Amino acid sequence: MTARREDGPTLGLDIGATKIRAAIVDDSGAIVAGTAAAPLTGRSPDQVIEAVDRLVRSGFGAVAPRPGRIGVAIAAQVDRARGAVLYAPNLGWGRVALGARLGARFGVPTVLENDVRAAAYAEGRVGAARSVDQMLLLWDGTGLGGGLVVDGRLLAGARGAAGELGHLTVVTNGRKCHCPNRGCLEAYVGGWAIAERAREAVRASPRAGRKLVARSGRPSAITAQQVFLAARAGDRLSVDLLRDTEQHLAAGAVSIVNALNPSL
Amino acid sequence: MTARREDGPTLGLDIGATKIRAAIVDDSGAIVAGTAAAPLTGRSPDQVIEAVDRLVRSGFGAVAPRPGRIGVAIAAQVDRARGAVLYAPNLGWGRVALGARLGARFGVPTVLENDVRAAAYAEGRVGAARSVDQMLLLWDGTGLGGGLVVDGRLLAGARGAAGELGHLTVVTNGRKCHCPNRGCLEAYVGGWAIAERAREAVRASPRAGRKLVARSGRPSAITAQQVFLAARAGDRLSVDLLRDTEQHLAAGAVSIVNALNPSL
Repeated sequence: MTARREDGPTLGLDIGATKIRAAIVDDSGAIVAGTAAAPLTGRSPDQVIEAVDRLVRSGFGAVAPRPGRIGVAIAAQVDRARGAVLYAPNLGWGRVALGARLGARFGVPTVLENDVRAAAYAEGRVGAARSVDQMLLLWDGTGLGGGLVVDGRLLAGARGAAGELGHLTVVTNGRKCHCPNRGCLEAYVGGWAIAERAREAVRASPRAGRKLVARSGRPSAITAQQVFLAARAGDRLSVDLLRDTEQHLAAGAVSIVNALNPSL
Repeated sequence: MTARREDGPTLGLDIGATKIRAAIVDDSGAIVAGTAAAPLTGRSPDQVIEAVDRLVRSGFGAVAPRPGRIGVAIAAQVDRARGAVLYAPNLGWGRVALGARLGARFGVPTVLENDVRAAAYAEGRVGAARSVDQMLLLWDGTGLGGGLVVDGRLLAGARGAAGELGHLTVVTNGRKCHCPNRGCLEAYVGGWAIAERAREAVRASPRAGRKLVARSGRPSAITAQQVFLAARAGDRLSVDLLRDTEQHLAAGAVSIVNALNPSL
């Protein structure tokens, strides 16, 4: 972005909502100087850039060569060509020229990518999918992200947003999503959706839901993690809810397999 | 396939279940010698090849230069690299080396492609999508086919089957499809599915279905075309059924837009 590519390894940064993780990697993707992590003490762009700076100095300063470039993965919609965050709901950011600012701070070229798309690229280049040309990655966290590798390349789409597999429609006119649409895969299998569906289920069937409510104290406090733990302990309502979740996840995966015919 | 590329225009063939259509086109995709069509009198590979031969001799022999190559679009699963039909349910074919056989008959290189994927390629190269890099095409006939152009290239997928958008899941565990799955887009919006859903609707509500049944004579004879005609004439059951069909079609289109972020 702000400087020509220089010699030296790459500093990889993963900027999440609560912490930053970093690693120094060589051109083959191998980690050459361990990893480091730092909690975010604040979420403004200035605070995040300061946290990166501290992390790099404390975590790598003594042991690693100076990085020749930086690759940033961030939980955000990203304009990759401009190195800018467009929207990062978990950090509360609108448009931020993060790539340019990090590049200026460290004096090296800096590339910015959405974190799930970066994970898909990495799995395709050096990970689980390195021997195939077609791959889909589904990343189920609070929401559901995805990335698509087609003919060996990470699909960008017209505005860098290809791979939003959480917003495949799996039930026409189904559950309301956090996006403006209904029936999205994420509205059934995202972490927030599993919690929401569990809360509805225990309200509809208090008796069947009593074990799950016992974990959370009250229906409105149920989390997706509690549903998984209760299912593992044999709670029927939780088992049924996760079976239903699997069906929707399978429907979304089948859709993409049928649409794109990836290597299987 | 069987010969080197030669000078001269391209013979384009569209092989359907009931007829063959042909045109002579130049390198820009412009039709230089009109079009011709011939009904199929039989559906064996030999009969189809004879029909092509008759069509070319009678339709173009006097007016067009000898084609330098042949491009075949066919309603079939195709192994494009080998120029072979893998499965053509409407013709009742399994594997047929149609490209090689046509190439041998006419002595020119012959390329074979699935008809809907060929249409997507054509729309991307010389048609509606020639000015965009990303495109999805949905072809609603008896079934529902599709094609995807991404970054200006027709997606092939691992086995040449990318773009099967009829088999996006739009209702998890929904209606049985003609494929082994349930809830496919085609099972709601394909021609066969519109007819099937209309038959079910008139059986469930004979009073609401009486206008539609009056067109077909009996419920089991209702066709998709009759549903469209009845809707145009204001039949409530048909209008509702097509509105529901639209919702599913929109769900499938939204899925692909979210997954691939095409130009809009």
